[in-house]
Amino acid sequence: MRLIAVGGSDAGISAALRARELDPTAEVTVVLADEYPNFSICGIPYYVSGEVGHWRNLAHRTLDDLCDAGLDVRVNTRAVGIDVSGRRLLVDAPDGRSELPYDALVVGTGAVPVRPPVTGLDALGPTDGVHLLHTIGDTLALTADLDSHRPSRALIVGAGYVGLEMAEGLTARGIDVVQVEALPEVLPTVDPTLGAVVREELTRHGVEVHTATTVTEVTASDGPTRLSVHATGANGQARWDVDLVLVVVGVRPDTELLVAAGATTGPRGAVSVERDMSTGLPGVWAAGDCVTTHHRLLGLTYLPLGTTAHKQGRVAGENALGGSAVYPGSLGTQVVKVFDLVIARTGLRDSEAAEAGFAPATVQSTGDDHKAYYPGAKPVTIRVIGDTATGRLLGAQLVGTLGAEIAKRVDVYATALTHEMRVADVDGLDLSYTPPLGSPWDVVQTATMAWVREHDLDRQRAALTSRRTE
Amino acid sequence: MRLIAVGGSDAGISAALRARELDPTAEVTVVLADEYPNFSICGIPYYVSGEVGHWRNLAHRTLDDLCDAGLDVRVNTRAVGIDVSGRRLLVDAPDGRSELPYDALVVGTGAVPVRPPVTGLDALGPTDGVHLLHTIGDTLALTADLDSHRPSRALIVGAGYVGLEMAEGLTARGIDVVQVEALPEVLPTVDPTLGAVVREELTRHGVEVHTATTVTEVTASDGPTRLSVHATGANGQARWDVDLVLVVVGVRPDTELLVAAGATTGPRGAVSVERDMSTGLPGVWAAGDCVTTHHRLLGLTYLPLGTTAHKQGRVAGENALGGSAVYPGSLGTQVVKVFDLVIARTGLRDSEAAEAGFAPATVQSTGDDHKAYYPGAKPVTIRVIGDTATGRLLGAQLVGTLGAEIAKRVDVYATALTHEMRVADVDGLDLSYTPPLGSPWDVVQTATMAWVREHDLDRQRAALTSRRTE
Repeated sequence: MRLIAVGGSDAGISAALRARELDPTAEVTVVLADEYPNFSICGIPYYVSGEVGHWRNLAHRTLDDLCDAGLDVRVNTRAVGIDVSGRRLLVDAPDGRSELPYDALVVGTGAVPVRPPVTGLDALGPTDGVHLLHTIGDTLALTADLDSHRPSRALIVGAGYVGLEMAEGLTARGIDVVQVEALPEVLPTVDPTLGAVVREELTRHGVEVHTATTVTEVTASDGPTRLSVHATGANGQARWDVDLVLVVVGVRPDTELLVAAGATTGPRGAVSVERDMSTGLPGVWAAGDCVTTHHRLLGLTYLPLGTTAHKQGRVAGENALGGSAVYPGSLGTQVVKVFDLVIARTGLRDSEAAEAGFAPATVQSTGDDHKAYYPGAKPVTIRVIGDTATGRLLGAQLVGTLGAEIAKRVDVYATALTHEMRVADVDGLDLSYTPPLGSPWDVVQTATMAWVREHDLDRQRAALTSRRTE
Repeated sequence: MRLIAVGGSDAGISAALRARELDPTAEVTVVLADEYPNFSICGIPYYVSGEVGHWRNLAHRTLDDLCDAGLDVRVNTRAVGIDVSGRRLLVDAPDGRSELPYDALVVGTGAVPVRPPVTGLDALGPTDGVHLLHTIGDTLALTADLDSHRPSRALIVGAGYVGLEMAEGLTARGIDVVQVEALPEVLPTVDPTLGAVVREELTRHGVEVHTATTVTEVTASDGPTRLSVHATGANGQARWDVDLVLVVVGVRPDTELLVAAGATTGPRGAVSVERDMSTGLPGVWAAGDCVTTHHRLLGLTYLPLGTTAHKQGRVAGENALGGSAVYPGSLGTQVVKVFDLVIARTGLRDSEAAEAGFAPATVQSTGDDHKAYYPGAKPVTIRVIGDTATGRLLGAQLVGTLGAEIAKRVDVYATALTHEMRVADVDGLDLSYTPPLGSPWDVVQTATMAWVREHDLDRQRAALTSRRTE
């Protein structure tokens, strides 16, 4: 059994490792276009900030680890074509073009950063101080630029997860940061009321934040700074002179290889896959940021996340060997640290839920992370989204300070969503309690109880009255 | 509708508040034997330690809060009899004995501390330096003794949750602590391998720990210290001269009132209740530490916990009004902080699972609380218990340092257990990830994956082979 995984990031490596775990006799080859297999892309902001000492530390596993697991890892090897019927992968490697025969292929080509339609952007690159950030190569170009030019002021286009982490990372390096977001609030993946809390945190740490503002042009400057950035917003035109521009406005699936081989595409142009990660092409599976994702509440969607890529890769690796695994589905669970704040979400927001046909309502409440009498209690604000028609839990968004265990509290909601719990049943969960770390009803539960009081108490009262008069 | 709740702690107050929430016209009276309604008993160690400034801060709600919620709270009022058929509660109050008529009664008399069979113990009390610790009254007697006698050395009988918290609390006050536990390891509610980690933490902080050692006699001393404590253990006889003895070896249900009224009892002598918290006595419900508890995996048991008392009280309050609520069940989820360690458990241990008819196996693994490349990563050790016959998750035990989000990670397992997940399905949960706070597979998931590798991988491999040869 010869399995080839295309791509050395989360999906490809997970597939390859799962295949070897299930069948130690399988010949498993991983081909990757660059020389950085199994790196933690999510860790890049912490290398740029200086918190991670060496970029090699960002590797989930070293090349030696992968070889020890029985993988034949071929770096600097770009997959350029798939002969589906002949089961051969065409690759360009340093020693030339060749064809690799396979019995099963798992494609994890990932995503590429989106280049927004900004005048002048395409003509500028790392040597001009303009950076995109997705690969270790991008990262090394950025840090080399930071080290050599020592910019005092940078502008970040985008205020999503990576944009916010990079605002913190550049600030940590002593760089003044201007952050420009086209949407009305930062971190547009959560409700604006929580985004506003994040914006305050950015501002408190000296980041100059401009929302509802669209960057229109970037030009090389002959003045004291390298670049000029032009934008339009509610207050008209704006211009900033900066030494560095970082563009982080999201990614799009890298589907070229699969589409050329005949694969079909779905939401956001990602390659359509079934929940077994099959592509419809015989012998070809795909996983990760290049494919569509099954969302437990929305069905087919595109939601590129490392956690998802790991899970999908594992399913693809098992099925490529003849297995019958099924990707269980995403809930879009995400968490981000921004300076001293942690913000998390899982499931749907009100607007997403309404589009999906639910009758959602959101209730926001705030409680302490642990009993207030024990020193150091911190407020946790939670927005619970539930379906008013059925009482079903649809989602949750949380914000609190670092140390308030936000990341694992969102995981309790994610687990509850997995099992399609009703909002009113969350308070029945037997969660842990000790005064330094929680409350008899954890704030996870007081938040759902607040939702129930607002949207289910009248029904509960009516039911009680009805029983009494029977 | 006249509802009386007996007991001013978690169960009684929860019942009373829930009744008022559902029916704001209900006349709800709470009678309690002492003058401390709605206090957080779990917070006592943190008041003794000095971390909580005033004992009044330990109140979940003040008397004013309770009155504002519409409760008629009668302190120093001891319920001494129930006229079940006449629906009257007999009480002794400062103004004498009286009968209170009711339509429904919720009894939450709680538990009383166990006095172990130690020679001399019964003759000694707080004025001699011998303390039990369960009520605010006990607490004030202890702190008064600490303030007036300023003991330099104390002996704690018992090393369960409260015993460990008190070892930390007394150490924080500068008192040398000797801790004596009859069982072979401290914190006997988790497996001894994790108990040993806790013992090391105690020792590291100067606590002198003796396990498998039974205290046999306590005597008032006329020497330089107030008390002498005698014990027998593996190494023969032992004796310690100390200024203070604290006996915290667990509780037993306070059932006198209900048993006298005709209620039946179950495990550990607790009053038998149905899952609707009915006692079998017409018009009488009961909840909290005085009653049996429905355990999701074990069925009827006795498991006195504040979290359970709150939930049962709420069910009792609703049903006393004519509702149809059902207590959803306990998993015995517990967490404790011991100095810089946090230890948690949920579900069953191997031995409990075997007794309950499962075919359990436990796999221990250790992983980081977040990506190792991000500063401050701390190891988390997890023991996953699963049923080898069905693959069902049965329990988990976790230990890690404070800040490693142990308390909320156990809650993820508790939520998974609630939904009877298979061990092999936990890695499919869409949990949150950001490098400073987790990993693409959270340690919660790498722990279940370790169990699967040991107990399910052979089956997975065989299934794959079978599919391939079909």
